[in-house]
Amino acid sequence: MTKTTELKSRLAEITDLHRAAGVLSWDHETYMPPGGLGTRAEQLSTLEKLAHELFTREEIGALIETATAECAPDSDDAVIVRLAKRDYDKARKLPTALVARLARETALAHDVWVQARRESNFAKFAPSLQTIVALTIEKADALGHNGCRYDALLDNYEQGMKTAAVRDIFTQLKAATVPLIQAISERLEAVDDSPLRRDYDEARQLALGESVARQFGFDFTRGRQDKSVHPFCAGFSPGDVRITTRVGRNELAMALMGTMHETGHALYEQGLPVEFDRTPLCNSTSLGVHESQSRMWENLVGRSRAFWRYFFPQLRAAFPETITDADSSETFYRAVNKVMPSLIRVEADELTYNFHILLRFELEDDLLEGRLAVADLPAAWNAKMQTYLGINPPTDALGVLQDIHWSGGSIGYFPTYTLGNLIGAQLAETILVALPDLDAQFERGEFGPLLDWLRTNIHRHGRRYEPAALVERVTGRPISAEAFVRYAKQKFGELYGLN
Amino acid sequence: MTKTTELKSRLAEITDLHRAAGVLSWDHETYMPPGGLGTRAEQLSTLEKLAHELFTREEIGALIETATAECAPDSDDAVIVRLAKRDYDKARKLPTALVARLARETALAHDVWVQARRESNFAKFAPSLQTIVALTIEKADALGHNGCRYDALLDNYEQGMKTAAVRDIFTQLKAATVPLIQAISERLEAVDDSPLRRDYDEARQLALGESVARQFGFDFTRGRQDKSVHPFCAGFSPGDVRITTRVGRNELAMALMGTMHETGHALYEQGLPVEFDRTPLCNSTSLGVHESQSRMWENLVGRSRAFWRYFFPQLRAAFPETITDADSSETFYRAVNKVMPSLIRVEADELTYNFHILLRFELEDDLLEGRLAVADLPAAWNAKMQTYLGINPPTDALGVLQDIHWSGGSIGYFPTYTLGNLIGAQLAETILVALPDLDAQFERGEFGPLLDWLRTNIHRHGRRYEPAALVERVTGRPISAEAFVRYAKQKFGELYGLN
Repeated sequence: MTKTTELKSRLAEITDLHRAAGVLSWDHETYMPPGGLGTRAEQLSTLEKLAHELFTREEIGALIETATAECAPDSDDAVIVRLAKRDYDKARKLPTALVARLARETALAHDVWVQARRESNFAKFAPSLQTIVALTIEKADALGHNGCRYDALLDNYEQGMKTAAVRDIFTQLKAATVPLIQAISERLEAVDDSPLRRDYDEARQLALGESVARQFGFDFTRGRQDKSVHPFCAGFSPGDVRITTRVGRNELAMALMGTMHETGHALYEQGLPVEFDRTPLCNSTSLGVHESQSRMWENLVGRSRAFWRYFFPQLRAAFPETITDADSSETFYRAVNKVMPSLIRVEADELTYNFHILLRFELEDDLLEGRLAVADLPAAWNAKMQTYLGINPPTDALGVLQDIHWSGGSIGYFPTYTLGNLIGAQLAETILVALPDLDAQFERGEFGPLLDWLRTNIHRHGRRYEPAALVERVTGRPISAEAFVRYAKQKFGELYGLN
Repeated sequence: MTKTTELKSRLAEITDLHRAAGVLSWDHETYMPPGGLGTRAEQLSTLEKLAHELFTREEIGALIETATAECAPDSDDAVIVRLAKRDYDKARKLPTALVARLARETALAHDVWVQARRESNFAKFAPSLQTIVALTIEKADALGHNGCRYDALLDNYEQGMKTAAVRDIFTQLKAATVPLIQAISERLEAVDDSPLRRDYDEARQLALGESVARQFGFDFTRGRQDKSVHPFCAGFSPGDVRITTRVGRNELAMALMGTMHETGHALYEQGLPVEFDRTPLCNSTSLGVHESQSRMWENLVGRSRAFWRYFFPQLRAAFPETITDADSSETFYRAVNKVMPSLIRVEADELTYNFHILLRFELEDDLLEGRLAVADLPAAWNAKMQTYLGINPPTDALGVLQDIHWSGGSIGYFPTYTLGNLIGAQLAETILVALPDLDAQFERGEFGPLLDWLRTNIHRHGRRYEPAALVERVTGRPISAEAFVRYAKQKFGELYGLN
């Protein structure tokens, strides 16, 4: 056995532990009875602790060193060893006790958050969040940074991306979208989204969502959909990818568009290079690129006119009592594209969405640098909602308590959503050159060519390229807001008659 | 930190790993998509391997030794350390590679078995079973025995029980029940079970089963019920106990009696001493005692006349179109107690059930001692079915392929079912002395007194006493077939008018 083989066999076992923790987390959010909470937190803590301990042993470092010398420089194994080294160097900076404590505290905080949100009681969640912020600061400092803790955390989700670059992108975005939203806000009534709020049977919504996922290419022999408080996608291997959704009787878009979104994530996970399964290479390259896939299927497909021309008959067949003769594909194409400053991020339109992210990004940065106390978070949240979107959350459940992320310790994660929007739009411009009749394909319900393109150009690479390098390799340009701004101006200009 | 505390903290982490594996297995049998199989097998193998590695380290042995000296002899900690020592000494005999290989092979074999059973194709399952039998022989020999491999395996499920003792009990049972079954077989038509095979909506069957479980005392905030191919109960802590069931439109007893059975297991798991959670003490003492709990609720409660007097109105309310005015509680009391030699163990009546076990016990013993080849198993199975029950399985799906156990490597496990039947009847005689108006309580739907008695006398002890010692402590007698035989003669004599 070569040292490379030995290293890969160790990495495979560590992957298994992380994936086992993934299954336990999925269960926690889908089926686990409340009584399981305490021991589940211990189980997750033990798994993460052990994975960290096994990975950060001196002998792994020695194996990496020998394997680096052993592998042909441009072999796949060399890529795997390089990724392992990057992860190893980072992991070595984190004390095992901190990793274990973060896993336990976040597992416990999840249910506190669920209950606090249900009761709209921020004070109930504040102590958990306080602990998580303190541990996250400890984590950022352990990882190391040049005076900006956010850099250390962002790098975990978006390898190589800097906080300053995120700020620049937001500045670019704000400059272009503030006037656009301003112009739209004078003609808000031009688009009517009330058709989404009629009475839609929940079971049929779920069935329709699964059908759309299948038509997009989700392979249900290698995945499934369940319900959870907060929708998510979790891949335990390319052969087992779970998505979740939530459904409301008078909210057609919530389950339907949410399922399209999670399907986009799932298609990436199902398309990862399975021949490298249980190595670091069989992973997404970043959350930003992950989000570009979900937003691609949710927005660029699911919110396109061509898709709705194809899909409208299916909607009508699913809800014959609800869809009237006065409705057409255009009714729903317009409805799902209404721009309206609103309270909930995951239900926001494509334009105002990024301001939800900007707000969170700024608050997180302030928390990490000690400029903002956890107790003052609701007031700060509400003030920024007023500044960026001109609205005031009536309750904390509809404000600062809405997202799962902080309860899970995912601080530094939010900017990847906006990066995903931008990357998605940038990819779409390239795709349209390669597949000029994409719209005609969507109208015929043919999503295979798009999926094939994504499989070939994004999915199959796994973690081979850093996110910025991958995007530049595929689109010929660095990540920027330009394509998104062009797309938004064109689409919303037409929808709101601004041209 | 004392060495005892350190030992307990290590044991807690090892428990977490086993429980994580338990959650992964539960998911495997309930929700996992088929594509997850390969990686799930790797995950389970890694978890079991790591748990074994961590537990069998020299330093655990040293901790046990110091802790033994440290603890007050009659403290709870002394019990925990003693149990740890027993498990440690056994585990040290098993090579880690064997543990890992058994975990992987059995995870893979599960789906092979499911498919082989679906197609009634024993040849498809034979290679997996061949591997499992070979590994099990290796395991038995590693554990050590005095020329009887079955002893080494049985001890894993029923601590302290010997194969020779099981044989004696079967001899006792055969002597008493063969004439009883003989007498009944001349009057088979005296009991009509066709009411169970009418048309019962599946969703309402599931709801009714859950309702019964709740009335028996199953706490759904600390557990749940799902569907699986083969019903089972899995406890991940007293706070998270899962049961599964299966349901058939024309088979009322399958889901209903199955749910009562698994509820009996679950009540034991929910009643374990949670103050010792994540130690070896917070475990059932044996599978035989576990089965005494499931058979208690399934048979001694669920197949009693008193229960049906209480429950019949609920059944009628659930299926108003199916239950007619000609029906009464007696119709169903008699139906669920029909004796009829039949093909499927889990659907067998209380009398013929034990012959299903005897058959498996003998076949396993023959396989382990090399007197029977895997390839010859179907023929041997069918021959014994003819000898013991006078029937011939028309297909292997209804014969040798029916049980999940062998695919999971659970060889040596089956006798605990019969032990459970006997222990259950023996406990019932003692309970009736303590709670003489138990039947009147059942008729009023009061199951709390019975549950309280079981909690106090069985559940709360966890693994403190060996199974034989626990039974003798509670009933004043060693485990034997006597109480069961008295119960069976009385009940079936009355039902079939034999007296």
